[in-house]
Amino acid sequence: MMKNLIYKVSPIPLEENKIKLNEALFHNANGYIGVRYDFEEGYPEGSDFLPSQYINSFYDIFDTHQAENLFGLIRKREIILNIANTQGITLILDDEIFSMFEGEVLESSLELDMQKGITTRKVKWRSPKGKAIELKITRMASFFQLPLFTIEYEINCLNFSGKLDIISTHDGDVFNYHDPHDPRNASEKMKLLIPVLCEVMEGFTFITSKTTASDLTVCSCVGHHLSQDCEHEHMIKDHKAKFLLETEAVQGKPFKLIKYAVFCDSLRHENCRKQAFLEMEKARSHSLDYLYQQQVKYLSAFWDHSWVEIEGDDQADLALKYNVYQLIQSVGKDRFSNISPKGLSGDGYEGHYFWDTEMYIQPFFTITQPEISKSLISYRYNSLPKARENAQIMGHSKGVLYPWRTITGKECSGYFPAGSAQYHINGAIAHSIISYYFAVKDQSWLINEGLEVIFETARLWLETGNFHQGRFLINTVTGPDEYTCIVNNNFYTNAIAQYHLQWAAKWYRLFQDNGDFQKLIRKIKLTEEEIDAFEQAAEKMYLPYDETLDINPQDDSFLQKKRWEIDSIPPEKFPLLLNYHPLFIYRHQICKQVDTILAHYILEDLCSTTTIRNSYAYYEKISTHDSSLSKSIFCIMAARLSMVSKAWKYFMDVVHLDLKNLCKNTKDGIHTANMAGSYLALVYGFAGFRMKEEGLFFEPCVPEQWKGYQFCIAYRDSRIHVEVNHTECVFKLKQGSKKELTIYGKTYTLEDMLKVELQEIKETVLEDCESLR
Amino acid sequence: MMKNLIYKVSPIPLEENKIKLNEALFHNANGYIGVRYDFEEGYPEGSDFLPSQYINSFYDIFDTHQAENLFGLIRKREIILNIANTQGITLILDDEIFSMFEGEVLESSLELDMQKGITTRKVKWRSPKGKAIELKITRMASFFQLPLFTIEYEINCLNFSGKLDIISTHDGDVFNYHDPHDPRNASEKMKLLIPVLCEVMEGFTFITSKTTASDLTVCSCVGHHLSQDCEHEHMIKDHKAKFLLETEAVQGKPFKLIKYAVFCDSLRHENCRKQAFLEMEKARSHSLDYLYQQQVKYLSAFWDHSWVEIEGDDQADLALKYNVYQLIQSVGKDRFSNISPKGLSGDGYEGHYFWDTEMYIQPFFTITQPEISKSLISYRYNSLPKARENAQIMGHSKGVLYPWRTITGKECSGYFPAGSAQYHINGAIAHSIISYYFAVKDQSWLINEGLEVIFETARLWLETGNFHQGRFLINTVTGPDEYTCIVNNNFYTNAIAQYHLQWAAKWYRLFQDNGDFQKLIRKIKLTEEEIDAFEQAAEKMYLPYDETLDINPQDDSFLQKKRWEIDSIPPEKFPLLLNYHPLFIYRHQICKQVDTILAHYILEDLCSTTTIRNSYAYYEKISTHDSSLSKSIFCIMAARLSMVSKAWKYFMDVVHLDLKNLCKNTKDGIHTANMAGSYLALVYGFAGFRMKEEGLFFEPCVPEQWKGYQFCIAYRDSRIHVEVNHTECVFKLKQGSKKELTIYGKTYTLEDMLKVELQEIKETVLEDCESLR
Repeated sequence: MMKNLIYKVSPIPLEENKIKLNEALFHNANGYIGVRYDFEEGYPEGSDFLPSQYINSFYDIFDTHQAENLFGLIRKREIILNIANTQGITLILDDEIFSMFEGEVLESSLELDMQKGITTRKVKWRSPKGKAIELKITRMASFFQLPLFTIEYEINCLNFSGKLDIISTHDGDVFNYHDPHDPRNASEKMKLLIPVLCEVMEGFTFITSKTTASDLTVCSCVGHHLSQDCEHEHMIKDHKAKFLLETEAVQGKPFKLIKYAVFCDSLRHENCRKQAFLEMEKARSHSLDYLYQQQVKYLSAFWDHSWVEIEGDDQADLALKYNVYQLIQSVGKDRFSNISPKGLSGDGYEGHYFWDTEMYIQPFFTITQPEISKSLISYRYNSLPKARENAQIMGHSKGVLYPWRTITGKECSGYFPAGSAQYHINGAIAHSIISYYFAVKDQSWLINEGLEVIFETARLWLETGNFHQGRFLINTVTGPDEYTCIVNNNFYTNAIAQYHLQWAAKWYRLFQDNGDFQKLIRKIKLTEEEIDAFEQAAEKMYLPYDETLDINPQDDSFLQKKRWEIDSIPPEKFPLLLNYHPLFIYRHQICKQVDTILAHYILEDLCSTTTIRNSYAYYEKISTHDSSLSKSIFCIMAARLSMVSKAWKYFMDVVHLDLKNLCKNTKDGIHTANMAGSYLALVYGFAGFRMKEEGLFFEPCVPEQWKGYQFCIAYRDSRIHVEVNHTECVFKLKQGSKKELTIYGKTYTLEDMLKVELQEIKETVLEDCESLR
Repeated sequence: MMKNLIYKVSPIPLEENKIKLNEALFHNANGYIGVRYDFEEGYPEGSDFLPSQYINSFYDIFDTHQAENLFGLIRKREIILNIANTQGITLILDDEIFSMFEGEVLESSLELDMQKGITTRKVKWRSPKGKAIELKITRMASFFQLPLFTIEYEINCLNFSGKLDIISTHDGDVFNYHDPHDPRNASEKMKLLIPVLCEVMEGFTFITSKTTASDLTVCSCVGHHLSQDCEHEHMIKDHKAKFLLETEAVQGKPFKLIKYAVFCDSLRHENCRKQAFLEMEKARSHSLDYLYQQQVKYLSAFWDHSWVEIEGDDQADLALKYNVYQLIQSVGKDRFSNISPKGLSGDGYEGHYFWDTEMYIQPFFTITQPEISKSLISYRYNSLPKARENAQIMGHSKGVLYPWRTITGKECSGYFPAGSAQYHINGAIAHSIISYYFAVKDQSWLINEGLEVIFETARLWLETGNFHQGRFLINTVTGPDEYTCIVNNNFYTNAIAQYHLQWAAKWYRLFQDNGDFQKLIRKIKLTEEEIDAFEQAAEKMYLPYDETLDINPQDDSFLQKKRWEIDSIPPEKFPLLLNYHPLFIYRHQICKQVDTILAHYILEDLCSTTTIRNSYAYYEKISTHDSSLSKSIFCIMAARLSMVSKAWKYFMDVVHLDLKNLCKNTKDGIHTANMAGSYLALVYGFAGFRMKEEGLFFEPCVPEQWKGYQFCIAYRDSRIHVEVNHTECVFKLKQGSKKELTIYGKTYTLEDMLKVELQEIKETVLEDCESLR
């Protein structure tokens, strides 16, 4: 059943931009560590490749200059660090050094196996002097043992026997990537991780490094296993450890080196050097094969819960699976970490976490692996104190405001109009908690963890908005669209704030009699008056609506601005943010990304289908999709509005964004939110899935280019497998008790299996009931 | 007649903050050079006084970091430089060094004589060992020879005869002032001026220094004259030249040292070292007394044209004269320079020029010394190419946008929402040209210089605004009030844009037959269609008006925001910009400074008196006056609205702002715009002066605290002296042909002298005609 799980390129391209692209596409990660795919043997001298590896949320702090020192602007910023490089392996055949850029590459391939959780590079190479070898290099970031990264390096001499020298390195002298020309990357070359100790102990090398300002330590430990005994020694110089070995290779008899690297940081461990030693011992206590089996086991469970399939388009099917796989590679699985827009495949956006998590990525986990969703919420719960400080910096006396971008919870957004001003992140976090609760209905968790976040974030709406002429307004914030900053009554923001306040009040009323709830109320000093105010604000919430156009204006003044026709902009001027002054962009009706349509997606009951349809048509024409957060939602809403062919076109862009490098910046890292977006597009879009308080809803359709598709949903105690084709929709209860499902407005009970004829139900139901939403 | 022209403090205060305050208050400047009043003998070791001297517009460029590298944000900034320090004179009595901080200061005073244009410090001092001396130190920045600064240093031994050693220094090792805690000052200590040559030649010392990035050179030359021959020598070390002399002083027989310093820069001179030598020779070719006489002569003419007087309040009278005097000290008199908010008394705001010039300071010169006003316009005319580049950076294809803050014409505003977004600077420049034309009616100048600026700036309104539902809107700009940034349809901006477009179109139609005008039209490719568009935009210009309140809203959304009652803000939280995040401030109805009321001041015919009055009452309650540009206009409008007592209260704050250090930051420099504002308050406020196309208008009133006041107006070929008291208003034609004057709506002809009874005319005229404006 687990088919189409291998992504492979052959031959391996050697152009600089493609090498960088593949560094990201073939990176290995497990949510804790991430290692870009750098050639072990390195690159030609003078080229600017930067071997990179990260620990999720392992960061330093560096000074951020503001051109004018206004109050509250950030002066320091957190940044994920490039940690010690354990990738290097130099292979010397007598006096010739193996390199993809010299001699002759006869055959080569790079392969990601998403069932096994490994990448494999195969190279058949002839040296300038004619020695031919075959290399098979297998890399794994272990899901079984998170600190562990392995490289299995197998050499087969094809036409000779003779001396092989191998130098395997462990290098503490690392820098962070920078690009002064792209505001989305760090602009300064930074040496932030300082090696303090480089040592050999019990056959392993240890490099202990300290950050310059965040007071963190990381220790990496590298050990080796050889397939046959041979001479070897360790050398240490300038914070770089070398493991040198010499062997006599025999033609046809492969020689194998296994390189184990473990990474432990002081965020998670009191003594990370000691922990690194323990982790290395643990890793070495198993055979590599055992570690590989554990990897398969973990992924087998993952795919079992998160299986997706598109029938009738193998390429899109593979891309979708690739995207889903990257989510499990990228997501942090402890309370210190979250999931960044680039996952662990690059340090674009400096490893910060954004609302991408709650609005795009978390829904995938909520309905497939809710435990991970819970862990993501616990990350936010743990950063409540910092979100409170942030609210105070922003001038508020009550409540919390989550930072727009952060690692530890401290605001790291340098340009506040497109950063801290995006108060809607509070709504996204609340929305994710509400959705998680729908999925698991864990009341005890809600009261002990979720509600504190719900209430504290809700308070901020009261602090931010104000009543004016009988309406509750939220002025001077920025909505999702970063091409229109600092506006009044952003429709999306007001809509999600209303939803948020409604649920906060509803739950307050509901849990009155619960003792733990009363404890929480006392702890956060929440009063009845505040709840009344929540209710009033929600009731009177102003949601901009334009009668003439029958659309929801993005904000109070959006429609009075000049329209900027996308067709009139030369192609080389995209993304606009790299080519136009922000003020010029803000002055126009032009969108970087989905905004009002996002509100229609998550809160569809607010407006009539006609308004939603009109809004879609209106905003589509002025949306540049300069953000990767945009097209997936346009895809979902096209599918829901029965524009299936349009939805399919969007989907093709969304699902292939990274594998086809459509944004031209995948080299800086994959786009995790868009990847999750491709999953949402299938499930929330084509399958018309909704999870509401009342249960699960589906309105499936299938693009004509496909035969059908499949996916799985975890809901309460159940796991449901869904299979859709052009004529029918089949639900299988793989686990748990029976559930009610509403398909095109008609409710069914799923016990073991449920088959619904699509054509029939669509016709009968749709006729009666135009306003399903 | 020239009375009350001496400002004196005695004894000289020695607290750190007061020393710094007096450094600014007693600085000597002439529009080209400015020298803060630093004690020649220096300060105790470890104190952080920074002897400072500047050349107007002599600047360097330094890197400006943006927290996020968005397109078009400035990366480099111009900054005025602290140039070589020529102030140092150390006096040694045998083995005791004179210092205000040791021994005993028996008497001391610091005095600015605004008739003579000099400052004098007198000190009677007893050394720790009991030697008593009297010092008289006179400083002058020469209006007669702009590069020249002199110190006349006279020592009188009161109770001994004996050895005196004097070390007079010339120090090229200088830094710029910085204050990391105040966004209004530079935040980094910067060494931007690098001495390259320090030499002695023909008895003078020369220090030649180069800037790090702007490729400019400055040469300072110092020479000495002694009242009696004595041993002396020059020493040079580490870019510091010392002139050492030893003399036998005789009790009762004063010894005098005259120190001449000249400063020449490569902005104005091809060879500034050679020029410095020529300037030194020129200075030395005269006696100091002759130079003093020339200074008096220059100032006599100045006061003759700009005389102001308040009768009945000597303190306010002195403060007003002090303010007017600082304007002639501060204003640049060549095409390279302008007048900065701090004049040449400190490097707050980095020596940049703002709209302060056109809206506050230039009107003073336009109606008293129009030649200087013309020179200020020529500065803008010369920077047209840079303003064109700036418009292009901001996304515009046509027209020019003047930078918000600049030295050479390049935008230097680091935080664009309160900087480059203030498009209204184009309107202020146009307004100043229109006013200058009213005053001088020089058509040839208008066509050859003024109109190019008028048209090019007018074009930008078309680029910025757009028609929407039949109205012309100007979206996404910032008005004068920097506590509400990036708004739509700022009333002030739209109003001045309308006025600007009207005049541009009017002049276009008027000068059709003029050959030079046709040349201009061809040069800037101005079309009939553009003029039509100017007219349409002006006609349809949207000017926000709120019917319920009968006021003009500051912008489209101002009234829907939360009101922030000033009374509710703790006093220590002002200025708000130092204590609240900008976004929090922007979300409230709160003003840093006058905005809508400024429109009512300059364009009073737009609205009814009732609307103006209501607006005044509305905005007054939410204006913090955190900007020094605010109260003078509130004063003017209070006077015009017959709230004379309120106007007087504002006037007291305005006129004393620097002398009483009411903003607590005069140490960083005087506030030139407010100083001009105090003049405008008297003339445009209490005297109800207006200069319109049709002529001159007056509606005088006198606060009950005063007996009356006087001032002078230059208008066309005439100079008019105005004297107002509680009962009458006397106009004297001091020069030129007869003029028509309209007083309280009634027109008179001024031939030699005109006396108007105020009580009578006010009663008769005001009854008939409520809507004078």
